Amino acid sequence: MDKTKSLFLTEDLLGLATDLYQLSMAAGYFEQGMQDTATFELSVRHLPENRSYLVAAGLEQALHYITHVAFSQEAIRFLQRLPAFKHVGQTFFEFLKNFAFSGDVYAMPEGTVAFAGEPLLRITAPLIEAQILETYLLSTINFQTSVATKSSRITFASQEREVVDFGSRRAHGPQAGVLAARAAFIGGCKGTSNVFAAYQLGIPVVGTIAHAWVMAHESERDSFQKFHAVFPDNTVLLIDTYDTLTGARRAATIGKGLKGIRLDSGDLLKLSGEVRRILDAEGLQHVRIVASGDLNEYRIDELVRNGAAIDSFGVGTEMVTSKDAPALGGIYKLVEQEHEGRLIPKMKFSADKATYPGKKQVYRKRDTDGNFREDIIGLEGEFIAGKPLLTQVIKDGKACYHLPTIYEMQNTASDNLARLPKPFKRLNNPEVYPVMKSNGLERKRQEAEDIIASQNND
Amino acid sequence: MDKTKSLFLTEDLLGLATDLYQLSMAAGYFEQGMQDTATFELSVRHLPENRSYLVAAGLEQALHYITHVAFSQEAIRFLQRLPAFKHVGQTFFEFLKNFAFSGDVYAMPEGTVAFAGEPLLRITAPLIEAQILETYLLSTINFQTSVATKSSRITFASQEREVVDFGSRRAHGPQAGVLAARAAFIGGCKGTSNVFAAYQLGIPVVGTIAHAWVMAHESERDSFQKFHAVFPDNTVLLIDTYDTLTGARRAATIGKGLKGIRLDSGDLLKLSGEVRRILDAEGLQHVRIVASGDLNEYRIDELVRNGAAIDSFGVGTEMVTSKDAPALGGIYKLVEQEHEGRLIPKMKFSADKATYPGKKQVYRKRDTDGNFREDIIGLEGEFIAGKPLLTQVIKDGKACYHLPTIYEMQNTASDNLARLPKPFKRLNNPEVYPVMKSNGLERKRQEAEDIIASQNND
Repeated sequence: MDKTKSLFLTEDLLGLATDLYQLSMAAGYFEQGMQDTATFELSVRHLPENRSYLVAAGLEQALHYITHVAFSQEAIRFLQRLPAFKHVGQTFFEFLKNFAFSGDVYAMPEGTVAFAGEPLLRITAPLIEAQILETYLLSTINFQTSVATKSSRITFASQEREVVDFGSRRAHGPQAGVLAARAAFIGGCKGTSNVFAAYQLGIPVVGTIAHAWVMAHESERDSFQKFHAVFPDNTVLLIDTYDTLTGARRAATIGKGLKGIRLDSGDLLKLSGEVRRILDAEGLQHVRIVASGDLNEYRIDELVRNGAAIDSFGVGTEMVTSKDAPALGGIYKLVEQEHEGRLIPKMKFSADKATYPGKKQVYRKRDTDGNFREDIIGLEGEFIAGKPLLTQVIKDGKACYHLPTIYEMQNTASDNLARLPKPFKRLNNPEVYPVMKSNGLERKRQEAEDIIASQNND
Repeated sequence: MDKTKSLFLTEDLLGLATDLYQLSMAAGYFEQGMQDTATFELSVRHLPENRSYLVAAGLEQALHYITHVAFSQEAIRFLQRLPAFKHVGQTFFEFLKNFAFSGDVYAMPEGTVAFAGEPLLRITAPLIEAQILETYLLSTINFQTSVATKSSRITFASQEREVVDFGSRRAHGPQAGVLAARAAFIGGCKGTSNVFAAYQLGIPVVGTIAHAWVMAHESERDSFQKFHAVFPDNTVLLIDTYDTLTGARRAATIGKGLKGIRLDSGDLLKLSGEVRRILDAEGLQHVRIVASGDLNEYRIDELVRNGAAIDSFGVGTEMVTSKDAPALGGIYKLVEQEHEGRLIPKMKFSADKATYPGKKQVYRKRDTDGNFREDIIGLEGEFIAGKPLLTQVIKDGKACYHLPTIYEMQNTASDNLARLPKPFKRLNNPEVYPVMKSNGLERKRQEAEDIIASQNND
């Protein structure tokens, strides 16, 4: 009777996890024998409101995909039966059967602070191979970068107070909750409530009780004592089920064994102060106050500036959906193509959507204190001072990269963010960080325009 | 060298796909021998701005989870090693080893139009079993319901013109793109660009070429001819890579074999009219015009009202992220508990977050034309006129439900939406649909308040 589907992605069907047009273009290139090597770049054209930087994230899952994408028999049978593919020859499906990525990939390491227009990822491979990756790479990098960026804003606002991810229930499906937990950690969170994420990533997992625990017992006091009996070392009690201050007094009766209390509703500034006084009056200065409930960087900033007695923030919805900017306009564009031995720069002119051609590198200049001063988007190999940010991660289809631990990624983000001057980190109307285009790049654009004009003069 | 992780959810680790506190509460209930049967309800407290209704979606994946959630040896070993679980006895982990859901579930079928405060799902099971499900059910139902609702708004604005999902690249990870394609279809979309979703769900998959196709060829004209050669029956050409009107003229040279053109930038109202004239002048009245590029219900409404010559809308970012309302405040609350043979109503009083107790049912009243007039949230079994919307889907842990096809779910949504009067469907400031609480429910709340007051009088 059970015909329900989980719709879980699986490795054997990774080839189908894309937009149809990637596969129809692949068939088209194949049928024409177009074996040119092409370079595509992934970047974010414009940043959302109140963002002047991004924290790059999602590369590990992108690399997993690139090195595992393939077409199983089952996937190929499905494509063969599509009416749109009726005229596609059998040899294309044979090609898919043996498909494996064989190209080179350069990328900014996760945790790197990046800006609008900068390539986060650069792929050079046979045209078909590079093309097919687009959809999956965009959804992977767009989402994790959004959340890592949001997390960095929230942890910035918290000024050294702990922030943890509580957002799984509001993420875009159970899988998105796992990816969000990862990205939030890279952006600066200290842990997550998501057990699967903690298991996979080896990061701290947090959480104790919900309102249901309190409601399921005969009384609030009873529920507190029972929880303490089972979790004597981890007694963090939710005190707002009926009345917060009464809840605080009942929690205090646990005594020295009480580790923390959580506030989840009401005026957190006022309540945190009152609860702190109740706890302190009982000699429970060590008890931590955790706050949750529709928090974001703006509310946390206000609470911290006003001296709220909060030690830890549990942030959910706003972080895992990057609620004020729930989508990042990442694009993946053809920038260069090797045709009959010549490298041809490629660009598009679409209204408001024009792109720069050529294989690019991002060069970061620092001031004498090591703080970020200016980025230059130039051509790979162009003679430009500054540290190149794109590093090779895949060579001839094989990983050639020492994958950092997630703690190292978090350190990269925290080090980068420390070097980014404050005006660029303001929560509202941050200054725009200076990103220049090199002379080489401008010349490349001129060259591309000339070529395209001469080819499209019909 | 490859240590990259996909972080894909898998059936054997479903037990970990939750918030830690569900498992710590489970351990707590277990250690106390709390075997009470409990009822939890999932509802959405307040609707986002400019929403007066929801289209329920995600039930199939919720049911899949409920009937498959379990704890593998590997999952249990992880939990045993958590410092927080140090004092939890071995018998709890034995219990997890044999965990399987054994309770009853009632739900609104997917595609049902629902309103704020109405239970979409009601679970009655031993306390631990019902508790553990919370996080996963919320993330599943919250997300798909958001997208199905957004899709219904977009297809409503399109007034019978086709809408298809192009959003995978901007969804919250590759898995969210699949779930979004499903929910968008239930809400009224005619197809998706996501191949994996189409494969799994048997829904139409759409798409032809991207800018890269045009750019990869020597000229735009060449790229059009080459595509037509491989896809003679499915030649839909993207014409804005360099200049839209020139692109239209070049596409027209394909002649009768041209199936459609796509506009992806610029002033879609103006360009669609000009392109239509170019095509018609060549006798290509049959060629369809597809538009895409940051579309939402408001922009589509404006285009349609102004007579844009657009036959099909490809909608991405705005739909798959429900961009103006990227999170739904779904909650999952304990409402009743059977303790020592008595049914005890449960509620919480938290500021602005109070809940109603008791096992509820939603009764829908129609007018003589069959249109929706009013809903009443009452108690299950209460004598109330109107059609009960919650139907049993799981009995004693087993599915007891004829799972509709996704086409049937789409029909349910379309039938429900047709019966919902227009003022409730307005894109801006829709009227609030009347949802009443029954006398039985109000009495139940009074009863619960009395019980809780008497129990918490310390």
